[in-house]
This record gives sequence, C-alpha cells and structure tokens, in this order.
Amino acid sequence: MRCLVPVDLEAPKSRLAAVLSPTERQAFARAMLEDVVSTLTAADCQPTVVATARIDDETLPDRTTVAVDDRPLTAAINARLADGEPTLVVMADLPLVKPTDVRRLTESDAGVTIAPGLGGGTNALVVREPAFRVDYHGLSFLDHCRAATQIQANVETIDSRRLATDIDEPADLAEVLIHSTRGAASWLSSAGFDLETTDGRVSVVRE
Amino acid sequence: MRCLVPVDLEAPKSRLAAVLSPTERQAFARAMLEDVVSTLTAADCQPTVVATARIDDETLPDRTTVAVDDRPLTAAINARLADGEPTLVVMADLPLVKPTDVRRLTESDAGVTIAPGLGGGTNALVVREPAFRVDYHGLSFLDHCRAATQIQANVETIDSRRLATDIDEPADLAEVLIHSTRGAASWLSSAGFDLETTDGRVSVVRE
Repeated sequence: MRCLVPVDLEAPKSRLAAVLSPTERQAFARAMLEDVVSTLTAADCQPTVVATARIDDETLPDRTTVAVDDRPLTAAINARLADGEPTLVVMADLPLVKPTDVRRLTESDAGVTIAPGLGGGTNALVVREPAFRVDYHGLSFLDHCRAATQIQANVETIDSRRLATDIDEPADLAEVLIHSTRGAASWLSSAGFDLETTDGRVSVVRE
Repeated sequence: MRCLVPVDLEAPKSRLAAVLSPTERQAFARAMLEDVVSTLTAADCQPTVVATARIDDETLPDRTTVAVDDRPLTAAINARLADGEPTLVVMADLPLVKPTDVRRLTESDAGVTIAPGLGGGTNALVVREPAFRVDYHGLSFLDHCRAATQIQANVETIDSRRLATDIDEPADLAEVLIHSTRGAASWLSSAGFDLETTDGRVSVVRE
C-alpha cells in the first residue's frame, strides 16, 4: 500500500509561536516527522514524505522517499489518489503513533478508514475506494464520512488516542512529554520543557 | 467484575462555568452519566454509581445501583478495592464511550489496565492486582503506572480516543457534538450549542 506523509517544514506549527521561535518550530516539526516516519517503516510501510519544499533526507529512515509538491495539502494528496492505488495518508505531527496503530489502519478493508483527530480533523486515513477524494480542513472527519457515504463507500473509524493526538498548540506538548520518550519528546526536554500540574490541569513550563 | 462509576452531581464541571450555569452543569453532567451507564450495561456490566450525595436513579438503566459516598474520589475507590475483587472504574464524563471500548478494558488480563485521559489523567482502569490502590489527580496516569510497577503488577494501556476524551472544558464540548448523537449531545443541541469552525479550529457557539 502506498504511504504518504504530507509535511510543511518551511513555516510549520504557527499555533506554537507563543512558545517556540520559527527555527525551533522547524526543528520540532522535523523531530515529529522523524518519529512518524520511523514508526511507519517499523510497521513495514515505505513512506513517501510529501514536502512543500526540499528537505534534508539524511536522517530519515532508509526506505523513505521525499517528494516535493508545493500544492496545497488537499490538491497534493488528491493528485496521487487519482490513479486508484490504495493509499495510507498519515499526518507528520503525530509523534505518539506506534506501529500497532498503523496496522489497525492498514488491516482495515473498508473503502475509507479514518482515524479522526481531536477537534474533528482527519489525522490518518486509508483510501481503498478509487473514487474517494480528500478535503482537509477543520471538520474534515465529518466531511470525509459524508463524502464516502455519497459514493457508497463503507467507512471504518479507528478509535485511537495516539492517532488522535496531533500536536498543534502549547497544551498539546504535554501529551508528548507524558506518553513518549522518542525524538520529539527528547527535543522538547532538550529545549527545556517539562510537565507542570496546576489546579489538577497539566501543562508545560520552559526553563 | 465489579464496575464503579464515581460522580459528583452536586457541583460538577466547574471548568464549564464560562458557558453553563450551575443548574445546566448539573443537567449536562447527569446526561453524560446516563450515557456512560447505559454503555456499561450494554457491555454486560452492572454499574454502581458512586455519588457524593443522593441522586435520582429513576432514569438510570435497570441494573444500575447507586451508592452514596461523600469521601473524596481516591478514598471512595480505595475503600472498595480493599477487598481484592477485580474492579472496573469508569469516570462519568466520558460520553463518547462505546460498549466495544469497555470490553477492551474488561478483556485485558493485566494486573492494572489503564485508559489514560488527555492531559495525563486516568479515565478508566481495571484493577485485578489486590494490592493496587488509586491516587487520582492531574498526572495520575504516570503515577498509576509507577505504582503498579512498584508492586510488580503488569500494566496494559488502552489506546482509545473515546476513553481519552473526558469533557471538562468548553473546547471539549465540540468532541461531543462531532462524535455523539446520544443523550449528552442531544442535551447540548437542545441548549443551543452548535459547532463552529474558525481559522481551521473547531469550537462551539451557543445561540
């Protein structure tokens, strides 16, 4: 199965601007990408990173390909879905994902298999139905379900906290420090981030 | 297996005070409790609602028991764990949970099985190890893992978005409207809440 990991490393993660500089956001996004790609290769996928501009591929796992595509996300994915080949699309900001989560996606035989993100996005999906096209935006999970139903494709939803946890905002950084010890978590620790509990709520502080 | 659902319906969900009055918070917490309890009975559990004060049990499913216990959450649960009986504890603010998620918990044979919440809490757990005691607070997931390891109990983590999504803050209400059509979602719709997408982020608005 084709495996795509779209990523923007030029100006990524703008919602983390309050806690990370532009250069730091690039480095953190890169660390998350490497976690995702190495998880995919551990799950026997051969990922193609679909990047908005050229990226250094030296620290990516061996079986990883980089394709540069400066189109918006939806157009870049749909151009590849057009040939009807079964395709797994995994976002690059899911550093908690484990190989077993990837297999839950690839082992589904539904026309469209979706792992929704928190906030109603589509963090990962498998498209087996040749007529299906993506439309990424805020509430894409519900729209993708509707679009699949309209073309009589059956939909399976994957219920995974790890696949649901895309790292977009400062509060999300706590999830990385709680549940991961891999690259993105190490990067945050090296940058001085640590967990803090106040009034029963968990957040991060930076030294 | 014994099944406990601790709940405070006296002054629940203080973090929703910005969008719901005290009376509304009670009604919404009650709607979430009913969703959770009916999911548990559908999964062949016989839940005991451990309430901080007397509650009306008329609209709860038939096989549900109510026990009043005004001790803090941790003490109320540990008093029941003391007899060593295998016990499932499910929080009352998980309106997305489905019977299949409950079975993932009850079918685990680990000494301690934990479904972490977003933010590092413990949203559900199964205790089979008689020596294990709970300690609920902000980062209880990591502490429960450590406590289990200290008594040589093996720990299994359940990776479920639905079990991870406890409804505490206004932003969480969107998850209910996106993923549920049951009691808590109906209550929110009746109260005038609807989904809104702004700048790619999903939130709720109230008419």
